[in-house]
Amino acid sequence: MQNFTLHTPTKILFGEGQIAALAAQIPADARILITYGGGSIKQNGVFDQVMTALAGHNVLEFSGIEPNPTYETLMKAVDIVRKENIDFLLAVGGGSVADGTKFIAAAAHYSAAEDPWHILQTWGAEITQALPLGVVLTLPATGSESNSGAVITRKTTGDKQAFMNDLVRPVFAVLDPVVTYTLPARQIANGVVDAFVHTVEQYLTYPVDGKVQDRFSEGLLLTLIEEGPRALQEPQNYAVRANVMWSATMALNGLIGAGVPQDWSTHMLGHEITAMHGLDHAQTLAIVLPAMLNERRVQKREKLLQYAERVWGLREGTDDERIDGAIAATRAFFEKMGVPTRFSDYQLDGSSIPALVAKLAEHGMTALGEHQDISLEISQRVYEAAR
Amino acid sequence: MQNFTLHTPTKILFGEGQIAALAAQIPADARILITYGGGSIKQNGVFDQVMTALAGHNVLEFSGIEPNPTYETLMKAVDIVRKENIDFLLAVGGGSVADGTKFIAAAAHYSAAEDPWHILQTWGAEITQALPLGVVLTLPATGSESNSGAVITRKTTGDKQAFMNDLVRPVFAVLDPVVTYTLPARQIANGVVDAFVHTVEQYLTYPVDGKVQDRFSEGLLLTLIEEGPRALQEPQNYAVRANVMWSATMALNGLIGAGVPQDWSTHMLGHEITAMHGLDHAQTLAIVLPAMLNERRVQKREKLLQYAERVWGLREGTDDERIDGAIAATRAFFEKMGVPTRFSDYQLDGSSIPALVAKLAEHGMTALGEHQDISLEISQRVYEAAR
Repeated sequence: MQNFTLHTPTKILFGEGQIAALAAQIPADARILITYGGGSIKQNGVFDQVMTALAGHNVLEFSGIEPNPTYETLMKAVDIVRKENIDFLLAVGGGSVADGTKFIAAAAHYSAAEDPWHILQTWGAEITQALPLGVVLTLPATGSESNSGAVITRKTTGDKQAFMNDLVRPVFAVLDPVVTYTLPARQIANGVVDAFVHTVEQYLTYPVDGKVQDRFSEGLLLTLIEEGPRALQEPQNYAVRANVMWSATMALNGLIGAGVPQDWSTHMLGHEITAMHGLDHAQTLAIVLPAMLNERRVQKREKLLQYAERVWGLREGTDDERIDGAIAATRAFFEKMGVPTRFSDYQLDGSSIPALVAKLAEHGMTALGEHQDISLEISQRVYEAAR
Repeated sequence: MQNFTLHTPTKILFGEGQIAALAAQIPADARILITYGGGSIKQNGVFDQVMTALAGHNVLEFSGIEPNPTYETLMKAVDIVRKENIDFLLAVGGGSVADGTKFIAAAAHYSAAEDPWHILQTWGAEITQALPLGVVLTLPATGSESNSGAVITRKTTGDKQAFMNDLVRPVFAVLDPVVTYTLPARQIANGVVDAFVHTVEQYLTYPVDGKVQDRFSEGLLLTLIEEGPRALQEPQNYAVRANVMWSATMALNGLIGAGVPQDWSTHMLGHEITAMHGLDHAQTLAIVLPAMLNERRVQKREKLLQYAERVWGLREGTDDERIDGAIAATRAFFEKMGVPTRFSDYQLDGSSIPALVAKLAEHGMTALGEHQDISLEISQRVYEAAR
């Protein structure tokens, strides 16, 4: 096991009706800005629940945070925060709203003369203060509700960059599985695939004898495999939605990755596909992961065999057959969730692969993975194998 | 899944050499009281490591916290805290030192006219402030290093009582597996059994479809089963000690018990044996648990079958045979760890069982377990079955 520091201070309020507990989490005299996305929370009752819970509080709202939250939109919220002396942010939405709100929280402390985009250029390292924020989660997927990271896009320049800082980690997160009942199937499917790949990025590397971390990761994968398809078939099954929601949070709060090597190459290759072609984040992960695992079958051999046995129950055949079986099962799982796994499924013929690789180069992604040895050439092979 | 609130803010610094990171966790101008037990930390180098890490800090020390920490001893530390204006407590030791230091942290804010024993009489509910504390853990077992509970004994009255309050949860915990190399085998064995039973108390109840919690618990049990005996055979195997240490922390930080029913009857019956006969805490758990599981085989049927299959790999035979097998395997595991599982192994003939049951009655333990239906009569049967 590698040395690690693990800090998971976000207070989780989980279960049906927990939005009602909001008021006790926020100072009574706070000036609150509620941030949200396209307005579905006004149709599905979540907004009303939040406002009821915050009755008597001083509340403003900011809507319009996009699926890939943009600097341009978020800076409008920063203006409101400054003008209205907002001192608490409440993100009501999925990972994009949470991510965007983290940016607002940090950017609010920049003077009008400074450009907070610098936060992204320094990966968040220069943040010294941030407004406290809470999250009411409506879409289980990214884990942003209890971690310290965010991904922000700058429309005018086409940049999509990440930052991390403990100061923007939510103080609390409310997770009510009931609010996910009305999500479109595509969003639930994407969320399950996203959480699955988050887990794989921290698990399928090389063994360091982190037995608890391995078992926890396998537990999340098994739960997502069991509950993901059921979440689509039985959208109002509380237990199923609860297990999916809790899995997604646990997949990226720092716990399963503490003390073990991490990969994240699938995410890097996927990001370029989203940036160039606009595919959903999870769709790009479903395209890249099976090809990446096959490409890295030597480097990941021991963990692939462990994955084959413990997650997919494959105990027969040669090592290579079991690895093939595990990769095929992974692909079949994504397909079963309704998330296709090849470029061609999205009407992409692979002709953009050189451009995707050029973008990887431009973004410095020349040595990816847990061994930092995935070169552009290897990335190109992965893209090609995913056609 | 049941609704839950989960808050795990203790910052974990895990790994070899992490004691050196201590200074950054404590304010530079803090007046620190280091609390510890019988002085083994002065023989094994831990004390020196701590003092080196805190060079330049204002440090006093308080030694002599007992294995079952007593009010009488701890109040002497409270006096020092008051007189010396201590504002940070650093517990260096195992669960007893951590527990005792939690009491000191809360008691320090009582006036000289008040008796802090009242903290125990109110289960910690009346605590409104506490000194911040950190832990350098030397014995993996109780999980006290990152939870909010403590058990304190009052020698003069023979009371042993628990309290819980988020205000006494350690700010940070340093877990360096190397410092456990020199522990006596009995303490490692006890720690493994303690962590195992902590997990069982939160897992072997009745199903509520908490799939992540179940998988996490099973992961801890499997890890302890694999690594426990090796920790005895290879005391300087870093990976093994690391896995045991991390399992013990994860077994009782709130995570695996969030959203699921909990039992704790084995602990309650065990506490009385320690109080009356002075057996180690883990020894009492090893005596009670197999008998308790057998007694509760109907109420715990579904989870016992899941435990048999997923933890012990038992898939053959009737339901009752698999349950018998799982209970026998549990007993055999404790015995393999060198912790016997019957009263007679400790030269106790069972003649004190009526007195133990009377103590349970005196302490209000008349409706134990996840169904609150373990009467004194049932507890008596469990004690009898454990002779």
